[in-house]
Amino acid sequence: VRAEDAAGARQICDDLHAADMADLLQVLPARERRKLLNLIQSDIDPELFHEIEGEARGDLYEITPNTQIADAVTELETDEAVYVLEDLRDEDREEVLRALSADDRVAIEESLSYPEDSAGRLMQRDLIALPEFWTVGQTIDLLRSDDADIPDDFYDIFVVDPAHKPVGTVPLSRVMRNQRGVALGHIMEKKPHVIEATADQEEVAYAFTKYHLISAAVVDESQRLVGVVTVDDIVEVIEEEAQEDILALAGVGESASVNESLFEVTRGRFTWLLVNLATAVLASVVIGLFDAAIEQMVALAVLMPIVASMGGNAGTQTMTVAVRGLATKELSATNAARILKRELMIALGNGVLLAVISGLLAWLWFGSPGLGGVFAAAMIFNLLVAGMFGLLVPMGLARVGIDPAIASSVFVTTITDVIGFFAFLGLAALWLF
Amino acid sequence: VRAEDAAGARQICDDLHAADMADLLQVLPARERRKLLNLIQSDIDPELFHEIEGEARGDLYEITPNTQIADAVTELETDEAVYVLEDLRDEDREEVLRALSADDRVAIEESLSYPEDSAGRLMQRDLIALPEFWTVGQTIDLLRSDDADIPDDFYDIFVVDPAHKPVGTVPLSRVMRNQRGVALGHIMEKKPHVIEATADQEEVAYAFTKYHLISAAVVDESQRLVGVVTVDDIVEVIEEEAQEDILALAGVGESASVNESLFEVTRGRFTWLLVNLATAVLASVVIGLFDAAIEQMVALAVLMPIVASMGGNAGTQTMTVAVRGLATKELSATNAARILKRELMIALGNGVLLAVISGLLAWLWFGSPGLGGVFAAAMIFNLLVAGMFGLLVPMGLARVGIDPAIASSVFVTTITDVIGFFAFLGLAALWLF
Repeated sequence: VRAEDAAGARQICDDLHAADMADLLQVLPARERRKLLNLIQSDIDPELFHEIEGEARGDLYEITPNTQIADAVTELETDEAVYVLEDLRDEDREEVLRALSADDRVAIEESLSYPEDSAGRLMQRDLIALPEFWTVGQTIDLLRSDDADIPDDFYDIFVVDPAHKPVGTVPLSRVMRNQRGVALGHIMEKKPHVIEATADQEEVAYAFTKYHLISAAVVDESQRLVGVVTVDDIVEVIEEEAQEDILALAGVGESASVNESLFEVTRGRFTWLLVNLATAVLASVVIGLFDAAIEQMVALAVLMPIVASMGGNAGTQTMTVAVRGLATKELSATNAARILKRELMIALGNGVLLAVISGLLAWLWFGSPGLGGVFAAAMIFNLLVAGMFGLLVPMGLARVGIDPAIASSVFVTTITDVIGFFAFLGLAALWLF
Repeated sequence: VRAEDAAGARQICDDLHAADMADLLQVLPARERRKLLNLIQSDIDPELFHEIEGEARGDLYEITPNTQIADAVTELETDEAVYVLEDLRDEDREEVLRALSADDRVAIEESLSYPEDSAGRLMQRDLIALPEFWTVGQTIDLLRSDDADIPDDFYDIFVVDPAHKPVGTVPLSRVMRNQRGVALGHIMEKKPHVIEATADQEEVAYAFTKYHLISAAVVDESQRLVGVVTVDDIVEVIEEEAQEDILALAGVGESASVNESLFEVTRGRFTWLLVNLATAVLASVVIGLFDAAIEQMVALAVLMPIVASMGGNAGTQTMTVAVRGLATKELSATNAARILKRELMIALGNGVLLAVISGLLAWLWFGSPGLGGVFAAAMIFNLLVAGMFGLLVPMGLARVGIDPAIASSVFVTTITDVIGFFAFLGLAALWLF
């Protein structure tokens, strides 16, 4: 690239898979990326528009004329095309849509009419839907004919009734294993998994994982077959959702990829740090209540962060398990009471062990058995609080419709900090003076 | 279940998909679960052995005689059978293996000989491998014949050379769309994605996600085709790995499902809390160095947890992004310097803003502009430290071969705690007295 060897660069890029090409562009520094994009601009693989992410994506869309984007969109499957169009500026999207054929435009506009992150956005509209009485032979003959509406890759044939409602699916392998005379209705899987076009992608991913689906029929509000979601899209959804949960738990927010714009990332993290500053001040106010005790005994100031930190860690442990349990549906209202008992027993077990260790430590360090006792008691108490609120906070948030991954950790660590400082300093003020 | 209505319970369970049945068993309290298992014992769906998890899994294996497990294993695909056998006690596993047919036993023992979490364990051994010169017609005729070695579901036909090395793949949809006379070699996808049987499942999942694969050929050390990994297994791997990362970051360890045994969970979390206790003590030792300053000015004790907590949070933000960046390969040695600069700029931006806010706060609260200045300076400094080590710690751990998800947060929070207390109290001791 540095040598501006256009032909050489083009040659290398031609040999790369679109996914590898996207990786290369994302890793390059901004200036060289733009240079490379200008070099290869005229023969960009349509798949690249779909594979690329982050800042590199913005650059690619900016450099490519809208007519070329429209050509690429025509080559892509509906779901990929929708993904590309979602992120264009409004006026560019209009221009690209106008340049498409009427069929493509209608299909894409319909998909875009479904809410973001819904099955309607993920689905592909080209699919094979046939009536029950069709035979394996007729099916194969149809597939061999040169019909433009047949998708590139497909894994199931959908069997529909006269109202175009899905009544069964036939995996391709089953079509191939049966004689030409057999009717599809005879070999189909009845009660197919049907997904509403408005369903959230998280729900769709859950069904795919649970029932090991490869593709599933998508229906509109009148139960008519309108598209198909395939597992390769779901793999991306699962990665995305897990990523979101991890980052949300750490307070990084959504704009988290190492390729996002600097300003957005800073702002996203700042919000979280500001909230954390407010809660830390709250904990400090609690400490301020006991300034007289601390003045009398500086050891309290030395030990108090330990109680708060242990509570925070134990609370995070329980909270993370709870957030994941809610996401994977292992935790629900039906078994909440049992899980709470379990968490409290874990907290009690760990609390007693850690209290003994840390009580002895405080005694030896400051030569005061009373201080050791107060420290140990505060430790057990705070771990029990951590176990309880680590579970109840995410469950409560989920019940009122807030994503527990995003909001839980502020609440849980505030509670364990405040209660940790209060229990330790309060007990010390009561017992030691 | 409570009414011991055996026939009724069996009826309901028969109608359930194995995955739903597994969910039901996992949610039931232990006593009722065992009762239900005893009721339905004689007609358990073989798939249930593969779907079930956690404590319920132990109960199911205990209640079912080994001969019945062997029957179920025969019904399952190789990869599912391996998954079931992995978790049996050694003597039970021997007994089940002995009860299998010689073919099945050899296949499963070979799979078990690959390391845990490797492609060899995930793969299924039944597959369709044909030479290049075979035609579409011959292929369909073979598939229609009643050959026991043909798997239930398959998505690609593998084309192999005379040495049984994979040279291409043909998606089923492409077989169906071509005339009977066309040779497979003519329509195959060349350069197929080939996976070594010893490859780690995380690598395999990465390739599936990146290249949108549905199935991929697995080869042994001499590059011969030995099995196939399908995307439904990969979906589970992705969920599992993301889950592991989330839980490891929170210090919960692997035994984390809400269905694990109480003792193991408590022990897993205890280890982490003990490590955290040690690092918290380290931070307290730093505080102890400045006890004279704290005695003179209790406000220091009130404010110091804020500096440490803000550093810890900012460090966790950077660290989480870095851990995920390493997992998704967005972060590597080639772009580390650029990302470090970026993180330091984010830290500086947020640090300055938060320092102004918190400096003013400390000034107003305690009426001392000097204290406000010290507080603000310590805040900026600690956020820069957090940004730097939040990135360098995970990268360093990954370089020496330690999973950054497991070990990073101890190091990062220890560093931000120690440096946070040291910077704030040290600057205060220097400037204020």
